[in-house]
Amino acid sequence: MHSVGICGSDVHYWQHGRIGDFIVEKPMVLGHEASGTVVKVGSLVKHLKPGDRVAIEPGALREMDEFCKIGRYNLSPSIFFCATPPDDGNLCRFYKHNADFCYKLPDNVTFEEGALIEPLSVGIHACRRAGITLGNKVFVCGAGPIGLVTVIVAKAMGAAQVLVTDLSASRLSKAKEVGADNVLQISKESPKEIASKVESLLGCKPEVTIECTGAEPAIQSGIYATRSGGTLVLVGLGPEMTTVPLVHAAIREVDIKGVFRYCNTWPMAISMLASKSVNVKPLVTHRFPLEKALEAFETARKGLGLKVMLKCDPKDQNP
Amino acid sequence: MHSVGICGSDVHYWQHGRIGDFIVEKPMVLGHEASGTVVKVGSLVKHLKPGDRVAIEPGALREMDEFCKIGRYNLSPSIFFCATPPDDGNLCRFYKHNADFCYKLPDNVTFEEGALIEPLSVGIHACRRAGITLGNKVFVCGAGPIGLVTVIVAKAMGAAQVLVTDLSASRLSKAKEVGADNVLQISKESPKEIASKVESLLGCKPEVTIECTGAEPAIQSGIYATRSGGTLVLVGLGPEMTTVPLVHAAIREVDIKGVFRYCNTWPMAISMLASKSVNVKPLVTHRFPLEKALEAFETARKGLGLKVMLKCDPKDQNP
Amino acid sequence: MHSVGICGSDVHYWQHGRIGDFIVEKPMVLGHEASGTVVKVGSLVKHLKPGDRVAIEPGALREMDEFCKIGRYNLSPSIFFCATPPDDGNLCRFYKHNADFCYKLPDNVTFEEGALIEPLSVGIHACRRAGITLGNKVFVCGAGPIGLVTVIVAKAMGAAQVLVTDLSASRLSKAKEVGADNVLQISKESPKEIASKVESLLGCKPEVTIECTGAEPAIQSGIYATRSGGTLVLVGLGPEMTTVPLVHAAIREVDIKGVFRYCNTWPMAISMLASKSVNVKPLVTHRFPLEKALEAFETARKGLGLKVMLKCDPKDQNP
Amino acid sequence: MHSVGICGSDVHYWQHGRIGDFIVEKPMVLGHEASGTVVKVGSLVKHLKPGDRVAIEPGALREMDEFCKIGRYNLSPSIFFCATPPDDGNLCRFYKHNADFCYKLPDNVTFEEGALIEPLSVGIHACRRAGITLGNKVFVCGAGPIGLVTVIVAKAMGAAQVLVTDLSASRLSKAKEVGADNVLQISKESPKEIASKVESLLGCKPEVTIECTGAEPAIQSGIYATRSGGTLVLVGLGPEMTTVPLVHAAIREVDIKGVFRYCNTWPMAISMLASKSVNVKPLVTHRFPLEKALEAFETARKGLGLKVMLKCDPKDQNP
Repeated sequence: MHSVGICGSDVHYWQHGRIGDFIVEKPMVLGHEASGTVVKVGSLVKHLKPGDRVAIEPGALREMDEFCKIGRYNLSPSIFFCATPPDDGNLCRFYKHNADFCYKLPDNVTFEEGALIEPLSVGIHACRRAGITLGNKVFVCGAGPIGLVTVIVAKAMGAAQVLVTDLSASRLSKAKEVGADNVLQISKESPKEIASKVESLLGCKPEVTIECTGAEPAIQSGIYATRSGGTLVLVGLGPEMTTVPLVHAAIREVDIKGVFRYCNTWPMAISMLASKSVNVKPLVTHRFPLEKALEAFETARKGLGLKVMLKCDPKDQNP
Repeated sequence: MHSVGICGSDVHYWQHGRIGDFIVEKPMVLGHEASGTVVKVGSLVKHLKPGDRVAIEPGALREMDEFCKIGRYNLSPSIFFCATPPDDGNLCRFYKHNADFCYKLPDNVTFEEGALIEPLSVGIHACRRAGITLGNKVFVCGAGPIGLVTVIVAKAMGAAQVLVTDLSASRLSKAKEVGADNVLQISKESPKEIASKVESLLGCKPEVTIECTGAEPAIQSGIYATRSGGTLVLVGLGPEMTTVPLVHAAIREVDIKGVFRYCNTWPMAISMLASKSVNVKPLVTHRFPLEKALEAFETARKGLGLKVMLKCDPKDQNP
Repeated sequence: MHSVGICGSDVHYWQHGRIGDFIVEKPMVLGHEASGTVVKVGSLVKHLKPGDRVAIEPGALREMDEFCKIGRYNLSPSIFFCATPPDDGNLCRFYKHNADFCYKLPDNVTFEEGALIEPLSVGIHACRRAGITLGNKVFVCGAGPIGLVTVIVAKAMGAAQVLVTDLSASRLSKAKEVGADNVLQISKESPKEIASKVESLLGCKPEVTIECTGAEPAIQSGIYATRSGGTLVLVGLGPEMTTVPLVHAAIREVDIKGVFRYCNTWPMAISMLASKSVNVKPLVTHRFPLEKALEAFETARKGLGLKVMLKCDPKDQNP
Repeated sequence: MHSVGICGSDVHYWQHGRIGDFIVEKPMVLGHEASGTVVKVGSLVKHLKPGDRVAIEPGALREMDEFCKIGRYNLSPSIFFCATPPDDGNLCRFYKHNADFCYKLPDNVTFEEGALIEPLSVGIHACRRAGITLGNKVFVCGAGPIGLVTVIVAKAMGAAQVLVTDLSASRLSKAKEVGADNVLQISKESPKEIASKVESLLGCKPEVTIECTGAEPAIQSGIYATRSGGTLVLVGLGPEMTTVPLVHAAIREVDIKGVFRYCNTWPMAISMLASKSVNVKPLVTHRFPLEKALEAFETARKGLGLKVMLKCDPKDQNP
């Protein structure tokens, strides 16, 4: 392994030992945003050979079920997924993964870019589910790492204007840096007030809203803000039960769609990185050698910076 | 005018004077499920002539706005709509309507079938938004008039099994009559229990759920019941704010879509009626001459039967 | 194995030793329309057990490539396919197949219905690629086995009117029997004349044309006949180079789509057969025990009847 | 009127008096790539007022027919279209147009950008019909004005790599300037050789090919070049009958789609221009005052430069 990013879920498992129904019941290796170098392949593997630099898609099918057959393999209930209990992750020196879910990196894509394909994939899947197309106005709630990759992808898919909201001015400033056209710092506005400000700033209601916080008021503002006939994508996960103005979405045919991880994103992400069509490098704010993993996790836990990257190869600590 | 059906909304305006933000502020003609005979056409009308029997689409565009241009004209905010204040309906003897929204009926389609295209359109639009396709298992909540047309349309679009739930055994028996493969009478089950029974009866979770009651527990059961990657369509209108297990839909990529009336349904409905591919005749349970409108509305208000039809042509009271 | 249907391609390999680039270079077992009973399963197979009656999807993936991941596994270049050289088919007594592509048959679906899922799948895939929906007028060129399953599926998906053309009156009579609303026997008409007759019989141009003959004039008539904005699906395979009025399709936005076999059709076909929503039984016109395979193939070669079924289980020769 | 671009079809009508079935039978004003300033509006017009700068969509509906209702109004047979006989164009000083098809330009979009929305729309419609999405490899045949706008739009929609072919090195150099990642000058290669070179340069077959020449060999190379499951869009118009390897497209499920003008493109084009997401300014190579229209048309006829712009406002000859 070469570079492994720390995700919020890694920190959550470390601190709380569970996320929803997924409970850590025995020691588990963390890490699922990863890239490395092939050292050995099985006899049937044809597309990879030792020495190839690869990005790793952490979800790997265990069986060819109905979801796989229709191309939505992320919904397969038996899927293996790095660092989701009981499956081990890849924050370590050597790791074995299904070759079908290892993708060769071109020479002009770095290991860290390869590791960042994982969070980028969340943005790709969300924007694709939202059906973003040329000229769209897009409202992104939340300027954390997922909000930021959503901004990057929305712009790459042709969004004319992306507006991002957040409580934090520094996060919004990062959003501007990665391509947001408008930002709106919110504090105590009601959901309807936020929707109204969004419309006013964009000059019209957005066709697409992508909610990356999971907060109930943000979901509500997403419903109020989205244009009739548009789409609200829920990326952030909120409480078990949520109170929302569902009828307000329904009678305006605002579709509400969630996302579960992603599928079919690595090849397109690699194409985009290879052609320099997207730039994810500004996301990495901290690097630690694997030996300083605890310090790295503390940094991530405190919410300092954006993406903390662990460098697993003692001989190569470069990006 | 020849035949005009009474809809729940007609009764509601009569009894309560408003539905949501639509308030009856001056005398208004009711009726929007209608058919009749052309007596006169404007000079530019080419597709109709006096004597033609027509079905009337109650929503008629007032301007060519963005929603019209993309083919979702039902979302046009300035649309004229029969019997939605302040626009008058067509429960009367003579009525003027935009010719673009009057559709000629073939000889083998009756006036009442023509009037029933309106409720049928709700079912068509819901099933189309749901993306029902060959072999689908479909769960329909509610066996009122809209639930029944949804059953009819779902079967016509290739659903292999349609299961309907309702509190009333007699409604469920009507659902069977119009084509439901399974029915389930519910009483005090929790939403999760209903979802579990639905799965058990169908042999698997349904790909599509169409909610026609607007009741919060029914929406909840729709979310629990629908298969991962499937769609829940909200036809029934519930309270302003609704508490739902949104995260349960989101992480299984169950899309939640509402419907607002319909668009582009009259031509396909006429094709289906002309080719005898659907049968809506069992929906009409009562007929009254226009003079007995009050009695007709009382019948509808009491929930007796399914569809009450008013006969506006004194010379022809046939179906 | 229990029942195996003979397909035109089986006859072609037998008579000519090749289809296009697929050349029979060593003895090959024929047969790919098949059903049977499980006698043994591998240790990882969970959804099947000995004694289960199954239908067999003849294409089975050999690797998880890009086409599989997006749900279009029929396009996978390395796919195994029964009776396509060099892969053996299943017209025999005992046969081993990837369990992921064996589907359990419900008790109320016969073995022969199970075997007929293969040709039915061609119709399903063609109609799905055509986007057939409620109320469509559909023009099917050719009333051979594939034309007939296309008629069955188009009606099941909600087509209001299906018109079938063929040179043979007896084939057209079979088309009527399985559900065609109109038939048109053609002889020496030009492609434009056929298109004009189709429009006249349907009352308008069809939204969808499904071409099942591969003949150049039929493809041309399909282009002329289809409504602007509609779709022409090519199922029949014609010559390497074809001369067509491409510009006539292009400027009217008539999409031209081909089909290669099928994918994701067995589960929906089984649902439809189990719920008695489609009836494929009339397709079987001849049955022979496996011992009389040569006689069966001669019957198929002469074009007598529609589907010739071979019965491989000496103890059970029932449908 | 302020700025009107000269299109190849304008030159063709001028020189030949007809394009296909459209024949100039009486004097006709040319011009359909236009922008200007509102001087007067009808009493029902609400979205525009005198003084507004507008871009003009040359196709304006005459009736609300089936194509309009489904959002594909470009297919409406009765549509008015500037400079398509017998409808006059807008290459003049003052011109009256349906207000629903006049779009207000933001202050930061120039008149010439407004006029260029017309050719840009051809690219948008082609790329949208092609379904271009993030990371796609796109092959564009032909580097004339339409090929160039296709490159611009394909990149804006997220294409990772766009490869353009042409006979002319200078046109290919312009293609690079507007964003093409690869160019390939062709001379006497066979269609299969071109397909092979395209694959080799892109590293894989393109998911999308957009054919902008209408030449039979180019259409053939488009079929050979496109990846299985991909789409070939025909923008260039070729001969009445075309000989193509149709079966090669069909069995690999390469869809062949044409385009007829465009629909629903002005709003998204304005959004893109306003947010500086696309740059069409390099397309304009020549400008002439309206008085020198003949000289302008001679320039266009000789194929000098790319887009020749006529300046209709004697008081403002700025871009």
